[in-house]
Amino acid sequence: MDAMGGDNAPGPEVAGARLAAEAGVAEVVLVGDQERIERALGSARRSPRLSVRHASEVVTMEDNPGQAYRKKRDSSLRVAFELCKAGKVDAVVSAGNSGAVLSHGLFVLGRLPGVERPGIVAVFPTPNGATLTLCDMGANVEVKATMLAQFGLFAACFAQVVGGKARPRLGLLSNGAESHKGTELTRAADALLCSAAEHPDAAFEYLGYVEGSELFRGHIDAVCTDGFTGNIVLKLSEGVSEAVMRMIKRRLESSPRAKLGGLLAKPALLSLKREIDYAEIGGAPLVGLRGLAVICHGRSDPLAIKNGIAAAARLSEAGLLPRLGDAVARHGRLWEGPGSSSKEEGPRAERDQSPSDGAHHSKESA
Amino acid sequence: MDAMGGDNAPGPEVAGARLAAEAGVAEVVLVGDQERIERALGSARRSPRLSVRHASEVVTMEDNPGQAYRKKRDSSLRVAFELCKAGKVDAVVSAGNSGAVLSHGLFVLGRLPGVERPGIVAVFPTPNGATLTLCDMGANVEVKATMLAQFGLFAACFAQVVGGKARPRLGLLSNGAESHKGTELTRAADALLCSAAEHPDAAFEYLGYVEGSELFRGHIDAVCTDGFTGNIVLKLSEGVSEAVMRMIKRRLESSPRAKLGGLLAKPALLSLKREIDYAEIGGAPLVGLRGLAVICHGRSDPLAIKNGIAAAARLSEAGLLPRLGDAVARHGRLWEGPGSSSKEEGPRAERDQSPSDGAHHSKESA
Repeated sequence: MDAMGGDNAPGPEVAGARLAAEAGVAEVVLVGDQERIERALGSARRSPRLSVRHASEVVTMEDNPGQAYRKKRDSSLRVAFELCKAGKVDAVVSAGNSGAVLSHGLFVLGRLPGVERPGIVAVFPTPNGATLTLCDMGANVEVKATMLAQFGLFAACFAQVVGGKARPRLGLLSNGAESHKGTELTRAADALLCSAAEHPDAAFEYLGYVEGSELFRGHIDAVCTDGFTGNIVLKLSEGVSEAVMRMIKRRLESSPRAKLGGLLAKPALLSLKREIDYAEIGGAPLVGLRGLAVICHGRSDPLAIKNGIAAAARLSEAGLLPRLGDAVARHGRLWEGPGSSSKEEGPRAERDQSPSDGAHHSKESA
Repeated sequence: MDAMGGDNAPGPEVAGARLAAEAGVAEVVLVGDQERIERALGSARRSPRLSVRHASEVVTMEDNPGQAYRKKRDSSLRVAFELCKAGKVDAVVSAGNSGAVLSHGLFVLGRLPGVERPGIVAVFPTPNGATLTLCDMGANVEVKATMLAQFGLFAACFAQVVGGKARPRLGLLSNGAESHKGTELTRAADALLCSAAEHPDAAFEYLGYVEGSELFRGHIDAVCTDGFTGNIVLKLSEGVSEAVMRMIKRRLESSPRAKLGGLLAKPALLSLKREIDYAEIGGAPLVGLRGLAVICHGRSDPLAIKNGIAAAARLSEAGLLPRLGDAVARHGRLWEGPGSSSKEEGPRAERDQSPSDGAHHSKESA
């Protein structure tokens, strides 16, 4: 656990890590300023599942991610990823600068073989009790068709490993269902996903373009989009459900009858609010690295941090990484088919990410 | 009223036009197959505000908009726009192929001077009773920075004229609030809007980038985005509010206590559902033409058609077109400033839209 990343670090990180350790969710190493972490831990009896690893520097929201990587060699974020690379921890959780989490992950861990760019995954509840997995939620703002198609593979794998769907139904987010809709980018990605879905052991069933109105109807398991649109989808979904809940609250205060009804329905509505609430869902996994990383909201409270740690533990136990690596290897050659823009750049092996070109390519967000 | 556009035309169009005429909302000319319209009107006494204009052809959802314009010269859509151009009607309402509405509007009416591309506007309710105006909701999938900035002007003007905001607060939809976020496109549009807002009679106050989570919090009056993202925002907002309402319904059936509460709160919740419901909001105005056009959903029922007609009448009475023309003229020169990509194409006057280049350029959607 990067203890120094969030807006109010290290308080919520330390409290959340303690909750996770005490609940037996995971063994947690708090990485960061030892003195401040110890102070936040206080003198209470400490869970044996909780330890501290000192790191003297902090990557801030204002830092340029690439520069921070080169200049802050003892940052809590970098040290956390180095522990992961050394096999001392299974996953990194951070509530810090998400662009920095992405680039530190890339520079320290590198990508799984065949992965072009890691993507951020988000999981949403749907009304029929199923979940919807989306990728990319903001790691890559300007993307190529091959990346977009891979985000589909990530989302589908995630729905398979975590959501238990044998053959997830995958859609590509667009502005209309017909294949002539969309942009040049989505049309090229659509062609790649169509041909990938014909693979005999395809990791998914491909539904083609899906529209914004369809996402939460329960017939879609996984959706891919670019990080710009994905970030807007993520935050808008939050915003709209908040707005509807506020509108309902107002309506339930509009008459004595509605007030009484609201009072009786309150426990049911509160349980729904909890289901939708960000803090309960946990962090957003960053997928495609040679290691697991989970990004929590900068304003995470201890419960959100605990849920982020729990999500990381679940992904590790479910074997997301080997399953994903396998799926990418299986589908990899299809990305090179006709319509793939990756051809322009020559063989994949020649352009493996190095810290310097990674810093140049990465347009982070979220 | 293009009587032949919708999925179930002309039934809902005729019934909706009748509702509008009988309510005194507008005088309506139903344009389309006279025999089928007369049959749908039936033998009941007809409002003097309702008339029929025969047109023998229909533009379908499968038609290529540009080809349909050239080959179907007597289509209901084309004839409706020609009536508008001739000054015989004030606005065109259609539930047809929105790409075709856009291109027919462009070819028949042309653009207001200084307008690069017309945009589709949508108006959303917010929890505090205010409204949020967004543009473009799907007319232009691939855009330039100058177009994106103009969509901001359209949305702001709309919020001014229709929403009664003296100086609307305008935001540019992005994946983060900081100005280094976004894409190359949004950064260029952000620079244009920043400089436009410094104009002494700026039509808006510019808030910079806004995120998806902020849209419905009530502090933003107008938002601009490209038509790809805008279409997803429009449909996702619909989808999320539907999903939340369905989740609430399920929760209100989860226990006897919740059931009783739900029963008592039902009228209040139904009135909210109506407020959010698509049919009640009416159509989406297409803004930037030398004439008014309102696009209704293909599956519009008579009430939605009536609301579309009412929206067109309101825009006409409020003088949206002259106000918009004035704002574009006032802000026009600012689009030519540094960072404007319109410079690439030479002076605006030289590239006034002709039917053939219009058909080529327009990548329609929605």
